[in-house]
Amino acid sequence: MLKKRYLLAPGPTPVIEDALLEMARPILHHRTPQFSAIIGEVKEGLKNLFQTKGDVLILSASGTGAMEGSVSNLFSPGDNVIVINGGKFGERWVDICKSYGLNIQEINVEWGKAVDPSIVRDALKKNKEIKGVFVQASETSTTVAHPVKELADIVRERDDTILIVDGISGVGVFDIPMDKWGIDVLVSGSQKALMLPPGLSFVALSDKAWRFSEDAKLPRYYFDFRKERDKLRDNTTAYTPAISLIVGLRKVLQNIREEGLETIFARHERLAMATKAAILALGLRLLAPDSPSNCATGFFVPDGIDGGKFARFLRDELGITIAGGQGHLKGKILRIAHMGYIDIFDIIVAVSGLEMALKRFGYKVEFGRGVAAAQEILYGGIDEGTGD
Amino acid sequence: MLKKRYLLAPGPTPVIEDALLEMARPILHHRTPQFSAIIGEVKEGLKNLFQTKGDVLILSASGTGAMEGSVSNLFSPGDNVIVINGGKFGERWVDICKSYGLNIQEINVEWGKAVDPSIVRDALKKNKEIKGVFVQASETSTTVAHPVKELADIVRERDDTILIVDGISGVGVFDIPMDKWGIDVLVSGSQKALMLPPGLSFVALSDKAWRFSEDAKLPRYYFDFRKERDKLRDNTTAYTPAISLIVGLRKVLQNIREEGLETIFARHERLAMATKAAILALGLRLLAPDSPSNCATGFFVPDGIDGGKFARFLRDELGITIAGGQGHLKGKILRIAHMGYIDIFDIIVAVSGLEMALKRFGYKVEFGRGVAAAQEILYGGIDEGTGD
Repeated sequence: MLKKRYLLAPGPTPVIEDALLEMARPILHHRTPQFSAIIGEVKEGLKNLFQTKGDVLILSASGTGAMEGSVSNLFSPGDNVIVINGGKFGERWVDICKSYGLNIQEINVEWGKAVDPSIVRDALKKNKEIKGVFVQASETSTTVAHPVKELADIVRERDDTILIVDGISGVGVFDIPMDKWGIDVLVSGSQKALMLPPGLSFVALSDKAWRFSEDAKLPRYYFDFRKERDKLRDNTTAYTPAISLIVGLRKVLQNIREEGLETIFARHERLAMATKAAILALGLRLLAPDSPSNCATGFFVPDGIDGGKFARFLRDELGITIAGGQGHLKGKILRIAHMGYIDIFDIIVAVSGLEMALKRFGYKVEFGRGVAAAQEILYGGIDEGTGD
Repeated sequence: MLKKRYLLAPGPTPVIEDALLEMARPILHHRTPQFSAIIGEVKEGLKNLFQTKGDVLILSASGTGAMEGSVSNLFSPGDNVIVINGGKFGERWVDICKSYGLNIQEINVEWGKAVDPSIVRDALKKNKEIKGVFVQASETSTTVAHPVKELADIVRERDDTILIVDGISGVGVFDIPMDKWGIDVLVSGSQKALMLPPGLSFVALSDKAWRFSEDAKLPRYYFDFRKERDKLRDNTTAYTPAISLIVGLRKVLQNIREEGLETIFARHERLAMATKAAILALGLRLLAPDSPSNCATGFFVPDGIDGGKFARFLRDELGITIAGGQGHLKGKILRIAHMGYIDIFDIIVAVSGLEMALKRFGYKVEFGRGVAAAQEILYGGIDEGTGD
C-alpha cells in the first residue's frame, strides 16, 4: 500500500513548508549586509522565544554543542556541580561535566518521575561549594517535565550558584520564561519546537552567568560564548554559520511571533492532553503520569509485546515514526512526540495507527476508542468558525 | 490552532513529493535530446497506464481540452451522437457537442445512478445514424461509475459508431483496459489519479477512432490529434508543452509502474470501501449506493445542515478540503475524494474531521464510530510485516 510518512518522534520533528521553501533558495554569503539583516531579525525573534532581554547566541551545532558550551564557558576544572539525572539527557549533562573534569554530585531521579526540588535545596544546603545545578526542562527520554521554576527559586538565592537548563525540547513547547524565573543558562535546538532540521543550537545567559564566564578556566574554542556574543552584537557569527538553517529560522520565528507564545503553549498542551487521554482509553499505562512534559507522551508497551518490533511495524508498515525507549526502558516504552509542526490530525493519525498496530500484535483493542478520547479533547480547541 | 492542509477533493489531488521536487528543477528546453528522451519514456508509461498499444497523446491543457479534441477530431457538423448525461461532466459532453453543432440525443440519468446499458442499446437500434456515444467512466460530480465495459460491448458491434470515454478521474483509479474492452477514445488528466498539478490531458484512440479522424470535418487547431500523433512519434509535441509537468509526469509514471496497476486499483477500492463504511456507520446516506466510483464517495448532508457552510467549516477551521455538490445537489451533498496520492490515514483524517464537524453542526455523533468502521477495512490492507 502507498504510504505517506508521519513523523511524531521527539526530534527531528516535521519541518514547516514555509521554512523548507526558504531553505531551498540559493545560498547567501554570510559576510554580507543581506545576511546580517537576517541575523538582526533572528536575534530579536530568539529573545521573544526565550523570553529574555539578553543575547541568545546562535551556534551551528546540534543541541549537545550548546550543552557542552554551557559547561566549558562557565566553570573551571574541579568545580562542584549538581546534575539532576532522570534520563538519557540528564546522563548527557553528567557525561559532559565528567569530560571537563568537574566534580559531580548526581541527584538520581527514577525514570518517569520529576525531581523533588526539596532534595536539591537540601543538597545545596549541605554543600556550599556547589557552583552549578544542571537540569532538563523536558527530560524527553522519559517524557517528564522537571520543576524548573521551583529550581530557579532555590538557586536564585545563592550568589555563587547558577542554574543551567536544557530546554532543547522544552523551549517553544511550554512556558519557560527565562528572565521572569531567573534562569541562568537556557539552551535550545532547531529540530524540536522550532520546526527546522537539526544543526542549530541556541543559548542565553543571565547577567550572573555572564559573570561566571569571566572566571571560567575550562578550555573552549568553537563554543566560545563571549566571542559569539560580541559577534552577534555586530549581527554576525564567529565562524561560518549554517546559513540555510538561519534563513529558515527567520521564517519560523516570524510564524512563532504571529501565532504567539501563549497560543503555541496552549496548542501543545491540548495535543499532549489528547494523546494521554487516548493512551488511557486504550488501557495502556503512562510512563510519566504525575509530571508529564507536553513535548511527548510515553507509555508502556503491553506485556509480551516487543517495543522495538512494534515501533518498526508502525514505521515500516504504517509510515508512522514514533520513538521507543532508551537505556533500561528500551523495548519497554514508546513515545509519541507532539511538538513543533504537529496538528490535531497528526494525533488522530498516531492514535489510529497505534490501535491498528496493537491489533496486529494481538492486543485486545476496540478500534476508534483511543481516537474518540483524543477527539473529545481536540474538539475543544477547534476555532469558533461556523462556515459562514 | 496551527492547521495543516488535507486535500481530499476530486481534483486537484495532492501532488506526490517526488514529482514536486522534479518539477522544481531548472526548466529544460523542449527542443532538445534531453526532453525528447523524457517524452520517449513518458509515452511508454502512458501506454501502460491506458492499457493500450496505441499512441497516448499529451496535450498541455486541462481535461476539458482533450474532451473538446475528442469531439472536434472525430466528427463532422450535424453528426448524430448520444450523450449519457448523469451529472456535471455528462453536461460538459453535451455543451461541447452543442458548441460544435452536433445533433445530440441525450440519455438523461438520475444523478447518483449509473446508466442502464440496455437503454443505450435500444437507442442505438432505433437510430442507425448515431456515430458516437459519449460517457464518463467516473461521473465524479455524482460519485458514480458508469458501466463502460458493457457500453463498449454494445458499441463495438457497430462499424459506424465509436465510444468516447471521459476517464479524467477514472484512469489510474479503477480498471479501464482500453484495448481489451475495445474503447475507442479514452481521455484523462494530470490532476486526479496522476498525482500532478492540473495542466496536462491525455487521449488515446483506437484504430477505428483514427479512421473516424480521417473523415472528421469539424474545425480544430491546437487540439489536432493527428498532428500531435505525428509529433509524438518523433518524441516531441506540436506546440510548446507544459515542460515541468511532463518532467513530473515521468516520475509519477515510474512510481505507477513500480506500484503496479493491480495494486493501485486495489488500494483505491479499499480506500473507497473504508470511506463508505464510515459514512454508513455515522448514519449518513450515500449518494451512489448502487454504482459507486472508487474516485470519490458522495453522501447527503443531514437535514437542516447547509452543505456549503459545512464544507467551508471543514476547510477553514480543520484544514480539510472536500467537495460539495454541483448543480441541483449544491448544498445537499458532500464528496470525499480518495484518488491519487491518498493513504489510509488521509481517510482517517477526513472521517475524524467529519465527525467533529458534524458535532459542531448539531448532528448527533459518537466520536470514533466512523473512524472505527474505516479502520476495520483499512486494517485488512496493511502489509504483512511484523516489525522483525
